[in-house]
Amino acid sequence: MLKHFQVPDDIAVRVDVDKLRNATEQVFIKCGVPESEAKLGADVLIFADESGIDTHGVSNMLRAYVSMYNSNSMNPDPQIKIVKETPSTATVDGDGGLGCMVAPKAMEIAIEKAKAVGTGVVAVRNSGHLGAAGYHAMMAVEHDMIGWCMTSGGKRMVPTFGAEPQLGTNPIAFAAPGNNEPPFMFDAAMTSIAGNKIGLASRMGKGMSPGWVAKSDGTPDMTGGASVEFVANSLAMQLPLGSTRELGSHKGYGLGVMVDILTGQLSFAPGYNTLARKRGGHFLAAYSVDAFGDVDEFKENMDGMLKAYAATKTMPGEERVYYAGLPEHEVRIERRANGVPLHPEVVDWFRGICAEFEIEFDLA
Amino acid sequence: MLKHFQVPDDIAVRVDVDKLRNATEQVFIKCGVPESEAKLGADVLIFADESGIDTHGVSNMLRAYVSMYNSNSMNPDPQIKIVKETPSTATVDGDGGLGCMVAPKAMEIAIEKAKAVGTGVVAVRNSGHLGAAGYHAMMAVEHDMIGWCMTSGGKRMVPTFGAEPQLGTNPIAFAAPGNNEPPFMFDAAMTSIAGNKIGLASRMGKGMSPGWVAKSDGTPDMTGGASVEFVANSLAMQLPLGSTRELGSHKGYGLGVMVDILTGQLSFAPGYNTLARKRGGHFLAAYSVDAFGDVDEFKENMDGMLKAYAATKTMPGEERVYYAGLPEHEVRIERRANGVPLHPEVVDWFRGICAEFEIEFDLA
Repeated sequence: MLKHFQVPDDIAVRVDVDKLRNATEQVFIKCGVPESEAKLGADVLIFADESGIDTHGVSNMLRAYVSMYNSNSMNPDPQIKIVKETPSTATVDGDGGLGCMVAPKAMEIAIEKAKAVGTGVVAVRNSGHLGAAGYHAMMAVEHDMIGWCMTSGGKRMVPTFGAEPQLGTNPIAFAAPGNNEPPFMFDAAMTSIAGNKIGLASRMGKGMSPGWVAKSDGTPDMTGGASVEFVANSLAMQLPLGSTRELGSHKGYGLGVMVDILTGQLSFAPGYNTLARKRGGHFLAAYSVDAFGDVDEFKENMDGMLKAYAATKTMPGEERVYYAGLPEHEVRIERRANGVPLHPEVVDWFRGICAEFEIEFDLA
Repeated sequence: MLKHFQVPDDIAVRVDVDKLRNATEQVFIKCGVPESEAKLGADVLIFADESGIDTHGVSNMLRAYVSMYNSNSMNPDPQIKIVKETPSTATVDGDGGLGCMVAPKAMEIAIEKAKAVGTGVVAVRNSGHLGAAGYHAMMAVEHDMIGWCMTSGGKRMVPTFGAEPQLGTNPIAFAAPGNNEPPFMFDAAMTSIAGNKIGLASRMGKGMSPGWVAKSDGTPDMTGGASVEFVANSLAMQLPLGSTRELGSHKGYGLGVMVDILTGQLSFAPGYNTLARKRGGHFLAAYSVDAFGDVDEFKENMDGMLKAYAATKTMPGEERVYYAGLPEHEVRIERRANGVPLHPEVVDWFRGICAEFEIEFDLA
């Protein structure tokens, strides 16, 4: 299920999770990030790598983050502030920090509020990329809560009937606890495919599949294209989930605008009123299951439901039906045992950055 | 945009909105619904008719509701109870009433809680069909709040890679206020197309479009089919938003399960742990904009954003880009002036039911 975007086994270098975590922390620290924050940032990235969400792990993201710190476009030591709050809500200013560290703190606020009054809803402005949104939603699950995380920004998605990108890929993550079953964890862009996957597919020479992107005049490309020029432009011309109006692209687009409102308008982040390219906001929410009823009963009910979804009769050619979070859980078990498969080029990058930052290199 | 599923102009009978509302109220009252509840139920249905959401207006829904009351499968005078609550949450038992009347009361609870502590989140069990989910989300907008409404139940959607329906169409509605611009109102099933539209298309002889439904073995039908047998079975074999795994159907399916959790698990409604056919729960939430920042500033920012989305450059063959809620707003203006276009067969049904119930008939 996740295989398509992973490094092929024959070239992958398996790297121990703890070693990868340690190297990532050291890189953050050398960028000026305080140690506790560096651990948090590394945890967010390693969660993605462990879970098979390779698009949001160290190979894609850490390099981008280092370059942001190097160019002073990201604050390595942000002083996060609550600018307004009520018993169940907070509006947070991330002080230009990386979302990987800002979002978990916002989620902690949400969780504390949910413990006190049942739910906590936090809107964040002035924050950067938050890694895999699922990480933050999953924080709530550890407290027997339902967790929500959304983020937005950039111009990547072309609205239905439109010919120019107006909103980001605007992912929605949502997690809820089971008892013995792996938790439900949904994390998906509201474009038909995650932006990073277009880049990965392109690097692996796979080209664009039908329904992923719009042509330069806005018309949905439903046959697929792979010319270099087309791929180069296609990152900024992504189709909403649904691809065409007939298949429901107005739903992906509408959900994307919903994410803009919850992340950007509710946090009063700059840029959302004009659809500026640079606009970045997050939304984090925690709902305490205990506020609604008995926690054990809820988790038992969830187990029943999740098992029933996974037991769905399959269509020809497929061996299993999954639910969101199940494949990631299984990949985590395998990778914790056998290491994270990295592209040799990523290992080389680590070797280089470790030399530059005078960090001991022990990944391979 | 909404035209495809509306009664053609040449056969439509235009009926005055107030007369239609009055007739609908009278029908509810004759079914044993108290007058205040009848007004509420009629308001929900007329909102859909006014807004061009014909799938959820009187023509499709009122007949179904009357038959439920007649067969005693719906409680005409439910005593709604809060079974558990915290400052920001409530778990509500709908006492077997129609969702059209139960959901607005649950939303009122959410709004009152949001006034007090910033947000209100209400999960409802033991309630029936709630009409157009957008109506309930819009209730929050009148209080300068963001509103959310979801509902679930039935077996209509086939999970990705599955060969049998396991969940409902599970719509998500979300609304947020602007200042002078029509509010943002998103309301969509998490299947690639709303179930009622399959019925409407079939009645109008339009057949199934590619990507709407699965074949009987679960394989997505990406070419379209229109045989009587196929259409008869297809209502229960709907594809998730995204249609195929490659186009993102796991996202529509995942969002559908999210709706199951928020509506059914959080309300502790029976049937969700086994994916029973009969399972019905709602989710309603209100977030007070005032809790996050200045209301006037928010609404001004929303106006800017909504105008910018509507001003998106168009792709060839399209005259406008919309945002969710804009077409419905424009249809409301037109229909309030010119009446709701009903199929003559619907007017005949009203004539018949008015005779049966001894209600004065004055629709045509």
